[in-house]
Amino acid sequence: MDNVAPALFISLEGIDGSGKSTQARRLADHLRAIGRNPVLTREPGGAPGAEEIRRLLVEGDPDRWSPETEILLFTAARRDHLERTIRPALAGGRDVVTDRFADSTRVYQGATRGDLRGLVDAIHADAIGVEPDLTLILDMDPEVALSRGLARKSGEDRFEEFGLPFQQKLRAGFRALAQEFPDRCVLIDAQADEDTVTAAIAAAIPAAADRA
Amino acid sequence: MDNVAPALFISLEGIDGSGKSTQARRLADHLRAIGRNPVLTREPGGAPGAEEIRRLLVEGDPDRWSPETEILLFTAARRDHLERTIRPALAGGRDVVTDRFADSTRVYQGATRGDLRGLVDAIHADAIGVEPDLTLILDMDPEVALSRGLARKSGEDRFEEFGLPFQQKLRAGFRALAQEFPDRCVLIDAQADEDTVTAAIAAAIPAAADRA
Repeated sequence: MDNVAPALFISLEGIDGSGKSTQARRLADHLRAIGRNPVLTREPGGAPGAEEIRRLLVEGDPDRWSPETEILLFTAARRDHLERTIRPALAGGRDVVTDRFADSTRVYQGATRGDLRGLVDAIHADAIGVEPDLTLILDMDPEVALSRGLARKSGEDRFEEFGLPFQQKLRAGFRALAQEFPDRCVLIDAQADEDTVTAAIAAAIPAAADRA
Repeated sequence: MDNVAPALFISLEGIDGSGKSTQARRLADHLRAIGRNPVLTREPGGAPGAEEIRRLLVEGDPDRWSPETEILLFTAARRDHLERTIRPALAGGRDVVTDRFADSTRVYQGATRGDLRGLVDAIHADAIGVEPDLTLILDMDPEVALSRGLARKSGEDRFEEFGLPFQQKLRAGFRALAQEFPDRCVLIDAQADEDTVTAAIAAAIPAAADRA
């Protein structure tokens, strides 16, 4: 194991139904297949306390929290996730593959209220201060996600409820982030078949590992 | 009602057992007696969502959250309290009397980890940005609070658990805040009998009302 690259912190981002969860699992499988020992996690959540905060965020009335309060709650959950799951894993030499990280807050809260990106960034800088080594942005037309029946049907539908125009704003937001942070973001065509997407993601890993 | 002073935002601060809750009720009674219509509230909590966040903060293992995560959760609850309870009351011309506000986060988290005051202030500036018109700091030796049996016995004993040296650091922290913010803070001798404390608090009100 001594000749493998240092532990990598990898996030998957994209709209609901873009296949993040499936591809995160497949990426973890790939990393195991090449002799690494990844931790697979997700946001909001990923640690016991953070999962409790998740319940406050994803259940109940979509207007339950203002966007500003949401940003604080997402950041609280992220801090707990970072302290209890992400940092210990990286310190132990394990890769971390997370289904969403700070970019989701930038895009979701920014899409809800464009003027809030500054607040997201300020609180992120104060309380989180780290970015993934590699962010895989799974890009998909929300109409395709819908036609494939990929949009989740669960109690956790607070965000799905906002409809197609909202999902289209999110997609545009994620694409803009890929341009804003080209050093760590890779845009992945998530409309291809699953194996092709998995291969594109796997191809993005060595470049980051070389850089690390 | 047209000749009364504009709506006042008043916080009571101090260590556990200093009589904040009792004196907040008595202050609300006093304000009603002089023809005003106060809203009596408290932190963490004071709005339905904020009360749910409160439960995450006050129940369970004292080490459940790191100080940094706590700061984010307290600020999330405060933002909800501000939006749903405090601002609507003030906008409707009603005084607000709150048992704790941002100063508690400054002192509690600062007493836990002295280097965190900067983080508290940064997140407060980003997400809250307002201070009470008047802050009544109920000053009491924690040994007196203990001897009077005032320290609460409830499930919400996450902070009480830290013991006397911690409560002494808190007292010193509140006294230092009174010096740091002399324009809005009034130090009240909370070791006097209840009626004397209530009179001292009532005497502090007109000055603030004149200033408003």
